[in-house]
Amino acid sequence: MRYGTTSAIVAVAALVLVGGTGRVGAQNQAEQFTPEFRELRRSYDEKHTPKIEAPDSVKRGQWFDVTVGVGHDTHPSLSEHFVRYIALYKDTAEIARVYLHPVFSYPKAVFTISLDEGGMLRAIAEPTHSAGWESSKKITVTR
Amino acid sequence: MRYGTTSAIVAVAALVLVGGTGRVGAQNQAEQFTPEFRELRRSYDEKHTPKIEAPDSVKRGQWFDVTVGVGHDTHPSLSEHFVRYIALYKDTAEIARVYLHPVFSYPKAVFTISLDEGGMLRAIAEPTHSAGWESSKKITVTR
Amino acid sequence: MRYGTTSAIVAVAALVLVGGTGRVGAQNQAEQFTPEFRELRRSYDEKHTPKIEAPDSVKRGQWFDVTVGVGHDTHPSLSEHFVRYIALYKDTAEIARVYLHPVFSYPKAVFTISLDEGGMLRAIAEPTHSAGWESSKKITVTR
Amino acid sequence: MRYGTTSAIVAVAALVLVGGTGRVGAQNQAEQFTPEFRELRRSYDEKHTPKIEAPDSVKRGQWFDVTVGVGHDTHPSLSEHFVRYIALYKDTAEIARVYLHPVFSYPKAVFTISLDEGGMLRAIAEPTHSAGWESSKKITVTR
Repeated sequence: MRYGTTSAIVAVAALVLVGGTGRVGAQNQAEQFTPEFRELRRSYDEKHTPKIEAPDSVKRGQWFDVTVGVGHDTHPSLSEHFVRYIALYKDTAEIARVYLHPVFSYPKAVFTISLDEGGMLRAIAEPTHSAGWESSKKITVTR
Repeated sequence: MRYGTTSAIVAVAALVLVGGTGRVGAQNQAEQFTPEFRELRRSYDEKHTPKIEAPDSVKRGQWFDVTVGVGHDTHPSLSEHFVRYIALYKDTAEIARVYLHPVFSYPKAVFTISLDEGGMLRAIAEPTHSAGWESSKKITVTR
Repeated sequence: MRYGTTSAIVAVAALVLVGGTGRVGAQNQAEQFTPEFRELRRSYDEKHTPKIEAPDSVKRGQWFDVTVGVGHDTHPSLSEHFVRYIALYKDTAEIARVYLHPVFSYPKAVFTISLDEGGMLRAIAEPTHSAGWESSKKITVTR
Repeated sequence: MRYGTTSAIVAVAALVLVGGTGRVGAQNQAEQFTPEFRELRRSYDEKHTPKIEAPDSVKRGQWFDVTVGVGHDTHPSLSEHFVRYIALYKDTAEIARVYLHPVFSYPKAVFTISLDEGGMLRAIAEPTHSAGWESSKKITVTR
């Protein structure tokens, strides 16, 4: 087992201790929380900030491609550390979302979309060890 | 066909007209946009606002159930009009999301979660004819 | 309302009738079921069968793109009739899945993946009015 | 870092080596593959097999709850090892799917559904270190 870490051993021990219910106890689960999970990240991070490739201007109702990658192509795809999903929004409206595989998926996707009006294209990429990372790109929509 | 509406007929006609590419043309797709799709809805709506059932206070790391329904149990599950997904957040951190079936799913789900610290539980339910609808409920987390 | 069809009117009427609970009654919901929803479709359909574009052979562990579209680029993206998701599998192992928007999403996506061994790439595209449609493409994996 | 395992160190080293492109190289990614990822698992496993709680018989079109848990309530929710999603099917038709959080989600969900005809309810739970695990339960649908 590649990820037979200390925390996994602690988890198993805790499971034995809680006994009857079999459920992971509150004390144990609380140890899994780190500050990184608390809030969506909007600061820039070389490894996690989504990279949005899209035209600067499109015609209303016209289909076009949006490519969303993660960081500088450097995020790993490991069973114990991968990007869970990449989601694409226009302002607050969610458009599409792709859920990825731990080791068979590279954290990148191409969506084909069309828009109603201009605003900010936003992408959120959420890895397994923190809340999502967000970035945005302005797009103009003409008639 | 239960939803043989005028717009569907227009769509088929447009498909024939664009010919070679087969793709739905920009003009036609633009006709599908309505203002309801533009922004996440935070106003109250009897039919669409998510209903969050959760304790007012929980212990840090303790598992508890959160039930999220949609409106006053009145949203239909129809092929042409249903709730696509229900998502649960703690402040801006997404916790869980369930994708629903047009006719086999009732728009309600129970998630079992635990929290790191208090804040606002938020739920978003997105139907097929608008952007998502959001509601929130304060929750306290004790040690 | 673009989709004010007879069935929607019937649904609203039924909601009023069930009264106290507000829930859509069993009789009414049963009317939404059509045989199309019952089983995954593996027959060929010009409008719904997924179209998989991928190399015939790849190196083990090498990243490559897989494009999955739906039918002959003719499936509409309408609030009342769209493709809910496109999923990609290698034999029975699910790799990635993209959930789409009723009117802002075109039913196509590009996934970047790598494989462990050869077999069948399978794609499932599920529209709102039937169970998913499946297709497959053989892929060889070399060392 | 709680999951500072050897494989993570190898991954970082490989990233440095591939240089210009920044992409994880084929050789390195191939090392992430284990036989567990290859095929959906249908054998019984105390820790991973989904547990379906549902009535033995329901009326056609009637809404009812289906609870799906994972194993004997013993699967951990760790950043480096969690259940990615739980999906519910009736025979080959997918009904609903919930995506879970690494540490805030317990691997259990309650879906509310209705059925067209009897058959096998199937659940798939997919952890981060293997393909999904499947189980099923017979259900009868009366008129």
